[in-house]
Amino acid sequence: MEMNLDSVKVVGFDADDTLWVNETYFRETEERFAELLESFETKNKIDQELFKVEMQNLDLYGYGVKGFILSMIECALQLSNHTISNDTLQEILDVGKKMIAHPVELLSGVEEVLQKLENKYRLIVLTKGDLLDQERKLEKSGLSKYFHHVEVLSEKKEENYQNLLEHLEIDVNEFLMVGNSLKSDVIPILNIGAKAVHVPFHTTWAHELVSKEKEKSTNGYLKLESIKDILDYLKH
Amino acid sequence: MEMNLDSVKVVGFDADDTLWVNETYFRETEERFAELLESFETKNKIDQELFKVEMQNLDLYGYGVKGFILSMIECALQLSNHTISNDTLQEILDVGKKMIAHPVELLSGVEEVLQKLENKYRLIVLTKGDLLDQERKLEKSGLSKYFHHVEVLSEKKEENYQNLLEHLEIDVNEFLMVGNSLKSDVIPILNIGAKAVHVPFHTTWAHELVSKEKEKSTNGYLKLESIKDILDYLKH
Repeated sequence: MEMNLDSVKVVGFDADDTLWVNETYFRETEERFAELLESFETKNKIDQELFKVEMQNLDLYGYGVKGFILSMIECALQLSNHTISNDTLQEILDVGKKMIAHPVELLSGVEEVLQKLENKYRLIVLTKGDLLDQERKLEKSGLSKYFHHVEVLSEKKEENYQNLLEHLEIDVNEFLMVGNSLKSDVIPILNIGAKAVHVPFHTTWAHELVSKEKEKSTNGYLKLESIKDILDYLKH
Repeated sequence: MEMNLDSVKVVGFDADDTLWVNETYFRETEERFAELLESFETKNKIDQELFKVEMQNLDLYGYGVKGFILSMIECALQLSNHTISNDTLQEILDVGKKMIAHPVELLSGVEEVLQKLENKYRLIVLTKGDLLDQERKLEKSGLSKYFHHVEVLSEKKEENYQNLLEHLEIDVNEFLMVGNSLKSDVIPILNIGAKAVHVPFHTTWAHELVSKEKEKSTNGYLKLESIKDILDYLKH
């Protein structure tokens, strides 16, 4: 695909599953959760119910690990018909804490890309989720030094992006967003008139999935297999 | 006390227990938590243990209601020696959700103060805690319209304030912070050379308390009984 990115001056990067691995740890934790509850339900049913509880709680808890742990506990009480053992609940708490304390694993090519772009563009991080958790991951990642600004948003909708660009005095024509989620990093960005690069991660949370139709009807963004390929389109 | 605030151009307000009631709901929830566990321990011991668990988890969970709910669950498992009932745990989850969904109760005089100051000063909100939760409270409060900027910080230490003032291009000499916590809203602000007004709330979380000695040795801030009294010191 041909795309002219000459007007770009500011590049925004999503963080989870764009700069570093994230969804994988949620999937591993879901596996463990299903094992802990295997005497009550099938793995499929447990996955479905956990997702349902998460979605019911999303408005209240928002994104991030703490809400996920609370939803696992609620789901365990429900699925076991209030017969889950205290030991299992303690293990759910422990698994959750392990997720928060997990080392940060950078995705391939990320550091090289940031190094090559940092002198030609203003680089920023735009992520959603838990504030403390995202700040901590950025700190652990060693990538802070490349970014002029880091913003943790409670949602990634058009309005959130618009307010942020206004606040940072960034012209939409000069803004390029790079991320793994069509729903959060690409579609709202195209809708406000900025540019977007989609770098899919092998695993996508069901909440972030868009329909095949929606995917097909979304045009005008650049899809790349690896973040490294962005160097073919930007100055460095 | 005499204090010259002529140089002030930007006024930062803490949110919880400065603009609206917050600590009171935590105290009410702690009361309920102690009732739920009263067959295991005395109220005093339960309070102490919950605070201990919260402090152990603070680095990992940060501030805010979700971490508090998780700490209540952990504490209930511990204090009951892993014999707490599923029904009680469900009730802890429910009490936590009620806290998050609680209506926002403005403190007396707040709206009047903001109305009178908004045309003379740039007003901003500087709060710590859960991002989504604080955004939601501001939304519910109806106060958003008075503020040029809202920043949710993961911590309120000197460095956090310094970075923020730099980012917003605010001169320390022109900045005044108003809040209920000596530890978070006054001391770090004085240390970076800005000005502070302390408006104590009747209830202070143990974690925010400073020693009597520290309080005595902290000088150069204005202590007011009500936020309304600030109008005696600022233009309007």
